[in-house]
Amino acid sequence: MSPIKKPNPGVTDPVSQAIDDQPTTQSGLPLKTVYGPQDLAESGWTYEDRLGEPGTYPFTRGPHATMYRGKLWTMRMFAGFGTPEDTNRRFNFLLEHGQTGLSTAFDMPTLMGYDPDHPRSLGEVGREGVAVASLDDMERLFDGIPLDQVSTSMTINAPAAVLLALYIAVAEKRGVAPEMLRGTLQNDMLKEFIAQKEWISPLRAHMRIIRDMLVYCTEKMPLWNTVSISGYHIREAGATAVQELAFTLADGIGYVDLGIAGGLDVDSFAPRLSFFFDVHNDFFEEIAKFRAARRMWAKIMRERFGARDSRSWKLRTHAQTAGVSLMAQQPLNNVVRTSMQALAAVLGGTQSLHTNSYDETYALPTEDAATLALRTQQIIAEESGVANVVDPLAGSYFIESLTDQMESAAWQYIDKIDAMGGIVKATEEGFPQREIARSAYEFQRQVDSGKRTVVGVNKYVDDSQDDAIPTLKIELEIEKAQIGRIAELRERRDAAGAERALSAVRDALRDDSKNVMRPIVDAVHAHVTLGEICDLFRAEFGEHRDPAYL
Amino acid sequence: MSPIKKPNPGVTDPVSQAIDDQPTTQSGLPLKTVYGPQDLAESGWTYEDRLGEPGTYPFTRGPHATMYRGKLWTMRMFAGFGTPEDTNRRFNFLLEHGQTGLSTAFDMPTLMGYDPDHPRSLGEVGREGVAVASLDDMERLFDGIPLDQVSTSMTINAPAAVLLALYIAVAEKRGVAPEMLRGTLQNDMLKEFIAQKEWISPLRAHMRIIRDMLVYCTEKMPLWNTVSISGYHIREAGATAVQELAFTLADGIGYVDLGIAGGLDVDSFAPRLSFFFDVHNDFFEEIAKFRAARRMWAKIMRERFGARDSRSWKLRTHAQTAGVSLMAQQPLNNVVRTSMQALAAVLGGTQSLHTNSYDETYALPTEDAATLALRTQQIIAEESGVANVVDPLAGSYFIESLTDQMESAAWQYIDKIDAMGGIVKATEEGFPQREIARSAYEFQRQVDSGKRTVVGVNKYVDDSQDDAIPTLKIELEIEKAQIGRIAELRERRDAAGAERALSAVRDALRDDSKNVMRPIVDAVHAHVTLGEICDLFRAEFGEHRDPAYL
Repeated sequence: MSPIKKPNPGVTDPVSQAIDDQPTTQSGLPLKTVYGPQDLAESGWTYEDRLGEPGTYPFTRGPHATMYRGKLWTMRMFAGFGTPEDTNRRFNFLLEHGQTGLSTAFDMPTLMGYDPDHPRSLGEVGREGVAVASLDDMERLFDGIPLDQVSTSMTINAPAAVLLALYIAVAEKRGVAPEMLRGTLQNDMLKEFIAQKEWISPLRAHMRIIRDMLVYCTEKMPLWNTVSISGYHIREAGATAVQELAFTLADGIGYVDLGIAGGLDVDSFAPRLSFFFDVHNDFFEEIAKFRAARRMWAKIMRERFGARDSRSWKLRTHAQTAGVSLMAQQPLNNVVRTSMQALAAVLGGTQSLHTNSYDETYALPTEDAATLALRTQQIIAEESGVANVVDPLAGSYFIESLTDQMESAAWQYIDKIDAMGGIVKATEEGFPQREIARSAYEFQRQVDSGKRTVVGVNKYVDDSQDDAIPTLKIELEIEKAQIGRIAELRERRDAAGAERALSAVRDALRDDSKNVMRPIVDAVHAHVTLGEICDLFRAEFGEHRDPAYL
Repeated sequence: MSPIKKPNPGVTDPVSQAIDDQPTTQSGLPLKTVYGPQDLAESGWTYEDRLGEPGTYPFTRGPHATMYRGKLWTMRMFAGFGTPEDTNRRFNFLLEHGQTGLSTAFDMPTLMGYDPDHPRSLGEVGREGVAVASLDDMERLFDGIPLDQVSTSMTINAPAAVLLALYIAVAEKRGVAPEMLRGTLQNDMLKEFIAQKEWISPLRAHMRIIRDMLVYCTEKMPLWNTVSISGYHIREAGATAVQELAFTLADGIGYVDLGIAGGLDVDSFAPRLSFFFDVHNDFFEEIAKFRAARRMWAKIMRERFGARDSRSWKLRTHAQTAGVSLMAQQPLNNVVRTSMQALAAVLGGTQSLHTNSYDETYALPTEDAATLALRTQQIIAEESGVANVVDPLAGSYFIESLTDQMESAAWQYIDKIDAMGGIVKATEEGFPQREIARSAYEFQRQVDSGKRTVVGVNKYVDDSQDDAIPTLKIELEIEKAQIGRIAELRERRDAAGAERALSAVRDALRDDSKNVMRPIVDAVHAHVTLGEICDLFRAEFGEHRDPAYL
């Protein structure tokens, strides 16, 4: 594949671009009025070089030969709130309504590694996701759900090793072998330090635990995706599509380096890395982003890492419509936005999709709103006909030009990060963070000045309209109940056994040559809690504080 | 342009196709899994021949060089209910909320040419559109609206000459010359006989009046679109996209023949013919339909009719999302459908668009639902970025192949209609009607058997969901008020003057060499009513009865 590296003046200087009146993509890439065959001819574009058949290198047209005609994307709706029983009911509701994969949202205490009775958990237990702190909680969460048949995604990062251990332990208790488990952990700490900022210890400590997870899962859980490399949060923090593309692939490079540093052969674990992208409003830029991402990852894996297994070359991805694009004003407008974003993800060739509910700017989605979001995917899949043909936009002069443009702009970032010594170092120095902050500032400036329209917000505003919609209320009773349960568990468990298991985890953390995963699984079997294990991380590696770049 | 006529086995035999499991478009055109450069190469496809630049023959890429970057499509929301004052308020509401053109829906009595006090009007006055029967009504309808500045579309057919006369008369009373008036009459009686079945007299009588309108408007109203050749109702009656394309263009040929028979030079009136298409669920087939329609019409005008003015070659069209695709079950799903249909119309290059409100299966739209439908267009226009690039899908192997396939299938129908002696004869013999009935039957059979999914209707059905949404209620008071007004008008007007004006219309109707338009304008100035003029049509030409083909 020939290099696609042309200067894209607008990309690294969005501020000066905004002054120019030429239309651009949301990322600031300049747009011509009309694209024709000469646009591809002039860049030396050929079908064989830039596209190829679907399912073949460089996978621009999709990771699989028949794509949705062979298998539709997974309709995976992120869900979680309240007690494990509450979320278990929602899981069963979604499975009954045609959803094809589970996706778990955890509450803030779980995400930050605190038990419900920790002072920092106050008022947050079960509020924005499900509260899970113990093996008992995890068993309740998946009660009645056959773990050897479903595929489960868990949005968890800093304490991901503990949640994986809990899932393994539940399976082991039910006699389901870990090698049968299918699913995905988010477990992407690079993007936490770049964008979402939910961490426990310094970045390199988290990277060491992820290294151990990569090694453990590669050996024991061949169907499990250990890291879902996430552009979503990078985008939601204000990155452009180009930055999302570039920083996400740079993070991917970081995890491949990590697995290799853990002694793994690249082809033994790269096929289980998966991705997670945002889908924002700019319809064609989003489609081009997915296509460029596949082509770039294929090249990175084959040329940079020398992967020989074609499965290592394939970028497979989950996508979620842009939460940040949802507006509180005129909330049903969000149904329109989400429909188009979902369509873009499908035309881009995603393997899995979450569609946001229109009420998510107010609260967690109601069942009716979550159902409508799922119906959105079903209408795209079964009424619109777009799933019948693989990569239907291939060959479009505009789409192919835009795919090239995005790739070129993203390589510039990756080259810069390489020159800085890699993504871990670049992140520690705050480079991606600063780039994102600049884009976020520019976007907001465009909205504030009216240069960028947000319907119902800075144009077509309607003060008379009643925006009240039904919302889901989470009761404080849930917090009390979860606190009671964890106290009861600490009473009930074999204290000496729990202490022994915790010591084994501590020993593994202190010895970089050991793998921490099995000790953590053993600890959760012994009813050691999430907070107790994360306290060990804090004690052994220290707590990270935001250096407040910028 | 080289001929695009390949056999499309599925098109003329949808029933046998349905047995085949190969995916097809909604029209039954077969779909390959993947399209690539060889698909275009094998058919001798070249850019110059099949596409060309936007704004140049054959206009596949759009009638204008810069398309939406030069001027966005017109957001024209069909509105009308109750008294003229009620609809006048809605017009002002829509203009204030960013709508850029007016579009009038009339009630059933108006559409059928009856005054409100006619026994057949009972219970229908102002119910499904606005009641207009007199010059007074028309003045109220456009009260405060500057007729020399707005563009007004009127959905009226059998009595279209009377409504045009009323609009001219209001303008004349206000000192606005008819040559200043901009707008569109539907006035397409061929599609009434083919599909919608709202007529007064036999087809050839209506065609004579349309001929006179073509001549009158060509001479006096250079900015007026006299006939909007409408595939919409053909599609809504159950036609496939291919049938809609073919029969609509065949109707267009019929009107060009009619203008020429009226003594007009083709280039004097063809530029003012406009089109009106449906946009249904099959996303890519709908996009291809618009592109094929432009290419076919260009060829028809230049090659068949020898038009020399490039404006005669350009198909300009209004589009409306498919009313028949809206479902009463889970009504918010209709927002998703309408969003995708609207996007397809825009990617197809429409000049004007009505988006249906999600509640239209229940009743006339509420203001909130109509606003959301308008917001849908605004989000596509101003947030999604799709208006930045002309014909963005051009060059896509699939889109170009599908455009060719649709064109080829549509030519087969047009050839058949030509062989039958033209569209008037074919319609009198019931040919298009039978083809549409067959497709409607097949579509329903597919829905009933579950082969075709309708989300929320035959799959993902949810009995527990409360589908209740706010609806608009029309009061019977309106009928009483309109009856009172027409009685009062008959009292008030100069009876002898009205009688003289009516006689002049009668004389013109009896003499095929006269033009009926000016006598009708004079009659409405003299407060002759809609019903009285249409009674003359009934008396002079007879009333048409449905022969119930099939």
